[in-house]
Amino acid sequence: MAGLAQRLVVIGGDAAGMSAASQARRRRGPDELEIVAFDKGNFVSYSACGIPYYVSGVVDELDRLLVRQPEVFRDNYAIEAKVRHQATEIDLDRGAVLVRDLDAGLDRWEPFDDLVVATGAIPRRPSLPGAHAPGIFGVQTLDDGVALRRYVAENHPARAVIVGGGYVGLEMAEACCALGIETHLVDGGPQPMPTLDPDMGALVARALVEFGTILHMGEEVTAFETSVGGGGVAGVATAGGTIPADLVVLGLGVRPNADLAGAAGLAVGPSGGIAVDRRMRTSHAGVWSAGDCAEKFHRVSGQRVAVALGTHANKEGRVAGINLGGGYATFPGVIGTAATKVGSLEVARTGLNEAQAASAGFVARAVVSESTTRAGYYPGAAPITTKLVVEQGTGRLLGAQIVGRQGAAKRIDALALAVWHAMDVEDLLSVDLSYAPPYSPVWDPVLAAARRAYEH
Amino acid sequence: MAGLAQRLVVIGGDAAGMSAASQARRRRGPDELEIVAFDKGNFVSYSACGIPYYVSGVVDELDRLLVRQPEVFRDNYAIEAKVRHQATEIDLDRGAVLVRDLDAGLDRWEPFDDLVVATGAIPRRPSLPGAHAPGIFGVQTLDDGVALRRYVAENHPARAVIVGGGYVGLEMAEACCALGIETHLVDGGPQPMPTLDPDMGALVARALVEFGTILHMGEEVTAFETSVGGGGVAGVATAGGTIPADLVVLGLGVRPNADLAGAAGLAVGPSGGIAVDRRMRTSHAGVWSAGDCAEKFHRVSGQRVAVALGTHANKEGRVAGINLGGGYATFPGVIGTAATKVGSLEVARTGLNEAQAASAGFVARAVVSESTTRAGYYPGAAPITTKLVVEQGTGRLLGAQIVGRQGAAKRIDALALAVWHAMDVEDLLSVDLSYAPPYSPVWDPVLAAARRAYEH
Repeated sequence: MAGLAQRLVVIGGDAAGMSAASQARRRRGPDELEIVAFDKGNFVSYSACGIPYYVSGVVDELDRLLVRQPEVFRDNYAIEAKVRHQATEIDLDRGAVLVRDLDAGLDRWEPFDDLVVATGAIPRRPSLPGAHAPGIFGVQTLDDGVALRRYVAENHPARAVIVGGGYVGLEMAEACCALGIETHLVDGGPQPMPTLDPDMGALVARALVEFGTILHMGEEVTAFETSVGGGGVAGVATAGGTIPADLVVLGLGVRPNADLAGAAGLAVGPSGGIAVDRRMRTSHAGVWSAGDCAEKFHRVSGQRVAVALGTHANKEGRVAGINLGGGYATFPGVIGTAATKVGSLEVARTGLNEAQAASAGFVARAVVSESTTRAGYYPGAAPITTKLVVEQGTGRLLGAQIVGRQGAAKRIDALALAVWHAMDVEDLLSVDLSYAPPYSPVWDPVLAAARRAYEH
Repeated sequence: MAGLAQRLVVIGGDAAGMSAASQARRRRGPDELEIVAFDKGNFVSYSACGIPYYVSGVVDELDRLLVRQPEVFRDNYAIEAKVRHQATEIDLDRGAVLVRDLDAGLDRWEPFDDLVVATGAIPRRPSLPGAHAPGIFGVQTLDDGVALRRYVAENHPARAVIVGGGYVGLEMAEACCALGIETHLVDGGPQPMPTLDPDMGALVARALVEFGTILHMGEEVTAFETSVGGGGVAGVATAGGTIPADLVVLGLGVRPNADLAGAAGLAVGPSGGIAVDRRMRTSHAGVWSAGDCAEKFHRVSGQRVAVALGTHANKEGRVAGINLGGGYATFPGVIGTAATKVGSLEVARTGLNEAQAASAGFVARAVVSESTTRAGYYPGAAPITTKLVVEQGTGRLLGAQIVGRQGAAKRIDALALAVWHAMDVEDLLSVDLSYAPPYSPVWDPVLAAARRAYEH
């Protein structure tokens, strides 16, 4: 039977790739489908979002971030997951991928009937002098995290500069502060976290300062300075001067890693991600893509966007795996929901912020409301600020942002569902959400925000 | 102008009544509308849901439960709120309410143009010998709470029996345990919290025992025994024997207080609540009802139900006030969302449980899934059990139940919105909910539950 089996090749062994492989296996046994996954790094199937917590030591053991080891895939699922194997070329006509065994230095063409491209994302690295100097780290793969933690342990950096105030940048700023490193954050924008509006970002900035971050907002990096001796990074230059540093972490976001796919002739969309349909099919039959490298449809703006996030990677990989396994599933798109922790501050957002709404062509207004995470009289009640972006006229909820203390962030999920269903704020304020004094005021902050947006 | 002003009378000065009064005032000034509210108790506008926490001392000051004092209503809103004034009769033809000043002992007919009946709910008290003995308390009004806390302070009860394992019963069991009182819980059902299915109720039972409650499940109360001397309660008799007690708290739920309305000829619905439409109009023009006394439409079962909950009272009062003030608003109904804290256990539910689904005519199946409140590797990750009740064939989500530790309960809101929109579990598992390791695994428990329900 083995001769009749088809062959699935997966490029990229993290969330999207291994989800696709697992789902395909659920539907088609080893006699029907041989599955082999290649990853250029040392790990497969891990939590990339846990890296900042591994660097800071909040999560102490590397193993804790590994979801499944290659042996588990082999023994339990008959999936061959090969680490340190880098795909370097895809030949669509031949139906084969050129894969380099990084240890042996050997190249080999791996034939496929189905191919899943799950090559993830690449940290943006500015094209500036010194940008590749030792001591400058992106934080994308677990290998990046391991290298960064080792660098900190061996070099005891005294001063770190985080370049870019997105999610990873903020999480790395907190990690560096927790490690006792003097930490600077440099960002060209007026406030950190540009997926929030500036007024909400200002609340986040305050929290960063609270735990010791030194902010340099509105400053663009112009160069990375290196030491005369070893060539390691020595400082970050901006228009405002040079910040000495012996560790630099790039938090400028990531771009879809579509290079291999694009070179092979697969369609790449306007976001830079690999173009896919709702079943995760690329422009070439039998070739699928999922995860950070694949373009996403934004359900509110209607735009094609690039969003690197494990939750999408898992869902898309699942959908690709079901479909190529002979089932039927679709991925309906994203609405930009995200959350993070900044010190003791909980931050979350969904849908469009004010700038995004305007850019997408909506005439929108925004309303900010203040509430508490629990009934005001209940111990532990803490402030929560909720901002809603609402379409003029219709009252349709386009987006929401939350900044608050314990219990704040996960409230974004109710708002995400409201955005998902294009609810207007009048309908939302009537919804039967839970109420009990340990968890919310009688008007939950979500409902209170909707009510305020309706009345103002 | 005063002679031309219309007059709004509100019966009941808590959440529903005062919300209606406030909203009416927003739309019609004192020259247009005179507003007077009567409450038979000593308080208006308070948080009844906070009473168990006041009894236990978690909330120490009574004032903390008061949202607004009568003086605030008078001075800031020109609303006259009279405590210790009991409405004893409604004459619809005359358009007047007979009100007794409980201190002066005087009765007076109060004329109205509009009337809001917000008479709340009455704790169910079994028709059993001794049920009205001193030392037996319902917990519905703030006056009940004050009386109970005073009784505890003055009598130092050593043993308490809580009769009934609903929300209030459980909260009072915890309060009594926290006060160092030996606490028994008696309930005729197999598990506490009958709004949950028994398998989920069993998790709650364990938490009750953890903090010291002695459970007597499956035992119906047959009589309340009283002491020979003063006639105070001395014990609670069941088929299993008599449990000595010097304090009894009734947690048998409440019924809508529709007596006054029914006697006046207002239509009362099958649930025992005052029949209202979506604008909170009763069967008589100019007469409105809101809150625990008003019947609610259940959006999933299609049934008319009685649900006593502050969040509905606030929303319904708001709707009544807007409408009688000349605006337009509707209350779309409820789906039975509720939450409570049982020790360190968070408990929440929405929609229909298995028994309710069957009773409403659905062919349903249920799927239980286990997850964690945070990413498994993140410190503080704790168990969360999610049960979904799903319609056979369509996969429509009919209801959900959550039992877990910190961060569990408020997740019910996302499920409530899914029930609200009659989503099927396949659509739900794709929704863009938030993900960050401090708040959830990469498949949030809500999505993981939907996925499991879809796949099983």
